[in-house]
Amino acid sequence: MTDTAPDIAPILAGDVRTAARLMRDLDDRRGTALASLKALFPHTGKAYLVGITGNPGAGKSTVVDALISHYRGLGEKVGVVCVDPTSPFSGGAILGDRIRMQRHALDPDVFIRSLATRGHLGGLSRSTFDVAHVLDAMGFQRILIETVGVGQDEVDVMKAAHTTVVVTVPGLGDDIQAIKSGLLEVADVLVVNKADREGADRTERDLLHMLDLRASGERKDVEIVRTIATRGTADGSGIKELAAAVESHRERAWNGDTAAARATARASAHLAELVRALLADRATAAMAARGGLDEIAQEVSERRSDPWTVAEQLVAAL
Amino acid sequence: MTDTAPDIAPILAGDVRTAARLMRDLDDRRGTALASLKALFPHTGKAYLVGITGNPGAGKSTVVDALISHYRGLGEKVGVVCVDPTSPFSGGAILGDRIRMQRHALDPDVFIRSLATRGHLGGLSRSTFDVAHVLDAMGFQRILIETVGVGQDEVDVMKAAHTTVVVTVPGLGDDIQAIKSGLLEVADVLVVNKADREGADRTERDLLHMLDLRASGERKDVEIVRTIATRGTADGSGIKELAAAVESHRERAWNGDTAAARATARASAHLAELVRALLADRATAAMAARGGLDEIAQEVSERRSDPWTVAEQLVAAL
Repeated sequence: MTDTAPDIAPILAGDVRTAARLMRDLDDRRGTALASLKALFPHTGKAYLVGITGNPGAGKSTVVDALISHYRGLGEKVGVVCVDPTSPFSGGAILGDRIRMQRHALDPDVFIRSLATRGHLGGLSRSTFDVAHVLDAMGFQRILIETVGVGQDEVDVMKAAHTTVVVTVPGLGDDIQAIKSGLLEVADVLVVNKADREGADRTERDLLHMLDLRASGERKDVEIVRTIATRGTADGSGIKELAAAVESHRERAWNGDTAAARATARASAHLAELVRALLADRATAAMAARGGLDEIAQEVSERRSDPWTVAEQLVAAL
Repeated sequence: MTDTAPDIAPILAGDVRTAARLMRDLDDRRGTALASLKALFPHTGKAYLVGITGNPGAGKSTVVDALISHYRGLGEKVGVVCVDPTSPFSGGAILGDRIRMQRHALDPDVFIRSLATRGHLGGLSRSTFDVAHVLDAMGFQRILIETVGVGQDEVDVMKAAHTTVVVTVPGLGDDIQAIKSGLLEVADVLVVNKADREGADRTERDLLHMLDLRASGERKDVEIVRTIATRGTADGSGIKELAAAVESHRERAWNGDTAAARATARASAHLAELVRALLADRATAAMAARGGLDEIAQEVSERRSDPWTVAEQLVAAL
């Protein structure tokens, strides 16, 4: 609690510098940052979040790049949240990629925020929601969230999205199975990127087959789009079709009878993530307060106490 | 707490059926299962855990398969914990792979446990430690932990290993950067698999370069091994060299002055994970007790309350 209400006016006006500072403060879990986020909340809910995920090497960031161009062409302000350490957007990439990104970096109506390289205690998902809310309040109508599509973390992050796009490529062989487990369940649109490669037909057939075999039984209405995405242009073959598939999912999912239930589910996922994150914060603080775990850990490593009993005692002491 | 001490004799005797049941009960967080785990703990600490991780498509499971054959050839009992949804060991793979796995499945001195397809509340890392302790108590001298190497989850899982092997392949292009962020920090041995492919020299050069550029400054003593792993044989080119590199790391890391500190760090990682997991359990129970989050989530989705304040209230009520 602060005595003075946080000044959110610059952020609502779209001031990039203030927003970047807020995001940094949120990462550092500074108290005033959270107060700003709460104050911004009533001004959110206007942005449409598109998640883009898939195997490393599938060309996700090229698809993201092409989508930025597409949405900018429509006059939309585009925010990008990148939680993919393999992405050139993350800043971890080689120089050539970074230079290719400059084009968007110089566009004031594109804001790119990478979460890949920071230590995100309590989950990347929390930070993704945080950043998405700030971008939303700033007036970015379209927010693209790029994650590398393996692991529970990434599936959690995708719960922030309104529409989830899963990108794959021909020639991954058995690795297409990676999509099968988990990711296919969250996919609203499937992309076969690099569709000029040999094996695109087979990849599409495999995807259709997997959609039919989904564990949940019911056949989800998932469109498959082929793309040959090229950086720096929205004219990449298939990008307009991909954007159309996203809009088509948006119509089906977010304008009909199920929209309210979906909105509740999304808020529920966010709450669950925040509760987990807050408890993780507590645990970290509690362990730090007792000078770390070294002494107890040594007892455990010498098998004088067992780790499960010790952990229970630590939690009970919180 | 139970009045009677759990009967752990069958597990210490290596009974597979009892062990499998215990692992299942641990997944379901049954109270008696935890008591058994605590009772088993003094009998653990003999196994050597090797983590194998890397990009999807790098051929990790083929390397694991070849290592199983290698260690079986030395007469060791081999346990495998698979937390890689792309791995044929996980059971999620296509039929052909599963048949190739049968060879090991029929060997009573090989025990394969997949964690990929279950809902592991509180983290895969906790479950990995649980299963590794059971295998250790059963007398498996070598435990291989296969994870897909992307995401914080997987890095956490690797904290259970004594030696961490990171597998890559030529031709991943920029995706080798994925290794740079996070994984390289945990690698004790680096493998260039499919080393007969074009670009192996360049991949090795890139890895060496990245080792030099590591953020932490100090140049870690990491061996790079080239393999052409083939399922069903330990004669795959490079597998013996890989095993030798693992033993060499074991000598350096676990027999010298730093061994005790390393053991403490490993126990500490396990404790931190357990504390996080216990708190997550509490959160889940608390949310379930109030009939889920639907009503509050609806308030949030309609922006009548903000999610951060609601989450704080939920945690305060725990």
